[in-house]
Amino acid sequence: MGWGDLGAFGEPSKETPNLDQMAAEGMLFLDFYTANPLCSPSRAALLTGRLPVRNGFYTTNGHARNAYTPQDIVGGIPDSELLLPELLKKAGYTNKIIGKWHLGHRPQFHPLRHGFDEWFGSPNCHFGPYNNRERPNIPVYRDWEMVGRYYEDFKIDLKTGEANLTQLYLQEALDFISKQQASQQPFFLYWAIDATHAPVYASKQFLGTSQRGLYGDAVREIDDSVGKILKHLQQLGISENTFVFFTSDNGAALISAPRQGGSNGPFLCGKQTTFEGGMREPAIAWWPGHIPAGGVSHQLGSVMDLFSTSLSLAGLQPPSDRQIDGIDLLPVILQGKLIDRPIFYYRGNELMAVRAGLYKAHYWTWSNSWEEHGKGIDFCPGQSVAGVTTHTQEEHTYLPLLFHLGRDPGEKYPLSFTSEEYQRAMERISGLVQQHKDTLVPGQPQLNVCDQAVMNWAPPGCEKLGKCLKAPESDPQKCSWPH
Amino acid sequence: MGWGDLGAFGEPSKETPNLDQMAAEGMLFLDFYTANPLCSPSRAALLTGRLPVRNGFYTTNGHARNAYTPQDIVGGIPDSELLLPELLKKAGYTNKIIGKWHLGHRPQFHPLRHGFDEWFGSPNCHFGPYNNRERPNIPVYRDWEMVGRYYEDFKIDLKTGEANLTQLYLQEALDFISKQQASQQPFFLYWAIDATHAPVYASKQFLGTSQRGLYGDAVREIDDSVGKILKHLQQLGISENTFVFFTSDNGAALISAPRQGGSNGPFLCGKQTTFEGGMREPAIAWWPGHIPAGGVSHQLGSVMDLFSTSLSLAGLQPPSDRQIDGIDLLPVILQGKLIDRPIFYYRGNELMAVRAGLYKAHYWTWSNSWEEHGKGIDFCPGQSVAGVTTHTQEEHTYLPLLFHLGRDPGEKYPLSFTSEEYQRAMERISGLVQQHKDTLVPGQPQLNVCDQAVMNWAPPGCEKLGKCLKAPESDPQKCSWPH
Repeated sequence: MGWGDLGAFGEPSKETPNLDQMAAEGMLFLDFYTANPLCSPSRAALLTGRLPVRNGFYTTNGHARNAYTPQDIVGGIPDSELLLPELLKKAGYTNKIIGKWHLGHRPQFHPLRHGFDEWFGSPNCHFGPYNNRERPNIPVYRDWEMVGRYYEDFKIDLKTGEANLTQLYLQEALDFISKQQASQQPFFLYWAIDATHAPVYASKQFLGTSQRGLYGDAVREIDDSVGKILKHLQQLGISENTFVFFTSDNGAALISAPRQGGSNGPFLCGKQTTFEGGMREPAIAWWPGHIPAGGVSHQLGSVMDLFSTSLSLAGLQPPSDRQIDGIDLLPVILQGKLIDRPIFYYRGNELMAVRAGLYKAHYWTWSNSWEEHGKGIDFCPGQSVAGVTTHTQEEHTYLPLLFHLGRDPGEKYPLSFTSEEYQRAMERISGLVQQHKDTLVPGQPQLNVCDQAVMNWAPPGCEKLGKCLKAPESDPQKCSWPH
Repeated sequence: MGWGDLGAFGEPSKETPNLDQMAAEGMLFLDFYTANPLCSPSRAALLTGRLPVRNGFYTTNGHARNAYTPQDIVGGIPDSELLLPELLKKAGYTNKIIGKWHLGHRPQFHPLRHGFDEWFGSPNCHFGPYNNRERPNIPVYRDWEMVGRYYEDFKIDLKTGEANLTQLYLQEALDFISKQQASQQPFFLYWAIDATHAPVYASKQFLGTSQRGLYGDAVREIDDSVGKILKHLQQLGISENTFVFFTSDNGAALISAPRQGGSNGPFLCGKQTTFEGGMREPAIAWWPGHIPAGGVSHQLGSVMDLFSTSLSLAGLQPPSDRQIDGIDLLPVILQGKLIDRPIFYYRGNELMAVRAGLYKAHYWTWSNSWEEHGKGIDFCPGQSVAGVTTHTQEEHTYLPLLFHLGRDPGEKYPLSFTSEEYQRAMERISGLVQQHKDTLVPGQPQLNVCDQAVMNWAPPGCEKLGKCLKAPESDPQKCSWPH
């Protein structure tokens, strides 16, 4: 989902009354970022509070390449990483993940081995259908075991876009919340829905209801579901005791637009890029009775802050034996404070850009290669800023491209290198970058090796369902990451 | 000002609390259009309820050229046109224009000859300063006579951007409203401020207060002023008896961005073009006690509708001896109705595009010429949609380029000519265009002839001020309209 997909963020169709209401009752974050311009690394960052380059969710197979966890990925979340649910357990929390995990699908990466108590959802994206020979269909798990596969037992009709998954995820959420409320147990619910990820889907009752096409139908169903979850909290009388945060793991995938891709509002490019459209996210905090209604924050925030903020809410300290990139946002949310901190934009293990205050400096620019672009793979359709949306990797480390995101949210007008403003801003940013690089200890890269043998051929529980498939022989390869 | 310049429309800095509040208390129009992608024709359309091609505010000097009323324009609003204030007089209204007139500056075009009772402002843009030899500085009028000139008596500091004009216009508005309230007279106030038109300006107390630079400072001052006007109406106890509408006469001038130009949100290009960024406008209706608070309308609206709506509010009928393009929006505003009507996008006397429902068909595409573009004149900076943002005038009258603005607000993905959807939509639009063209009676073009002798050399009142200048000899020429 992109920054510009919600009415509260200016989407011209204004079809998200529930999320807009959530914003009106809570706090809107206008300068909130994900940790990476695509899914797996962002989610790993959210759950560890650490940049992907630290927690291992990156590749070194090529320079500045995006990588994630397809079915043949060998890596996943390392045991050495401490995940938010693992830590919350210490405060008596019950933790559930509903939806997409994406932190590795091999047994050692199972979410219930990393702090979650319950799971309903899938380890990978809902790509498919596959023929179960070259590639198995993706499994859906309940807790430790699979309960079926996408396109087989969990239907997604690629022709009409119909799938009832969001409804299943909604019911799971409502039931879990009810159960926790009944047992008076504190809980952490990671509601990781994926209807706006291509192939985009919506339930029958939402199909064709949006001005925006199928993508809009999916957004409307998510909006409706969020409304139902918030209402459920209110009806159970626990809304003033439950902190809710809504955000996304990367900008709208413009390559899938308009039918399957959303809007990044006034920002440049989309998913896969380190321009604002790739990483600035819609973000809303909600906690009636605590967060003043109608608040708007310009705090530079990150999905990694949800790690630190959640620990703070639970009365816990973040781990002190490692670098945590997230900050505790409670002073921002509850007291309207502004904390000065930079935002780092990575692609693979390359620091592409840095934001400090309203300035953003690009150290490297790249959308994707000419070769890919020639095949019609375009992460910036209709947008072309000379020297900025480049199709060769351009190094600017000696003289970074600098933008003022207040005057120029679309990153279209680089500041003059000779201006005083440039000198002043870069002096500050250079210091931040130096400090960041000096102290950086990269994790072991997890997204380098792919192997057809590790795909979801025979997930736990497949025997009961008669859905075990024979894995091919192991053939480890360097994964290919074209962009 | 552009669609994307207000917080309520998703501007990422959210610096317009008063206009956002006006929207929260009133009705937000998300699909509201001006009548032309630049100033004079839009204002003529607003005040006559008629397309510029009917009221004469266009040129035939070149094909599909934008034209306005610079100092040397010979034409202006024809006497045969009936302006909103002329008609409102019949219902006892006192009419005042504050700010930019732009419907011609020669004596016969004076606003007080066309229905206004009072004027404080200027006939042209606040361009300058001039040396009073090749070109005089633009006069500022109070009622029939000039009271000074820009840059001489009304300072605009181009270096700092400081000018207190918006404050003068605000005080004029508050005083006029007070006076009308005291005398129990109904009134029409046309508050035609121009601080967001390059050269952009703001008063000292607003300079440097915006994240968005000087342009943002200007927007903040306008926002603050609107807030003061609405509060004044409330304090006088006449807010429930006063209909207020906020909109703009063209999209943000991206050519002046980022320092002097605003944002068109997710829309394509800006001022001077018939893409959405050139003509879709922020629009808010406010009338406490009548308009339900927090309304959002997808009615296709136009500045010309303000003519018909205002007449309706005053209990008057629109003239029946001529074609009026505006419609009465009261059923939309008060009862939430949706009226099916097309939007026509003109450049000069060429119908460039038509919107019906969510579909928009382009019959001609052009941003500007290669020659101009080569000089750095760019109406679509950073945006380039192959075959759409063309630098030669491209005719598509036989096979219009069709966009679905719900799925694709940015006009980036033309529908396939062979699709059923294309056929179905074009069938409808072709009918509308045929009907429009069949009944169109173009007015006499007013913006063809320019003459240095007609400039503001010696406006009425100049003698008293010792500010009469000698006009050069008359030398009528075809005006040059490059785009």
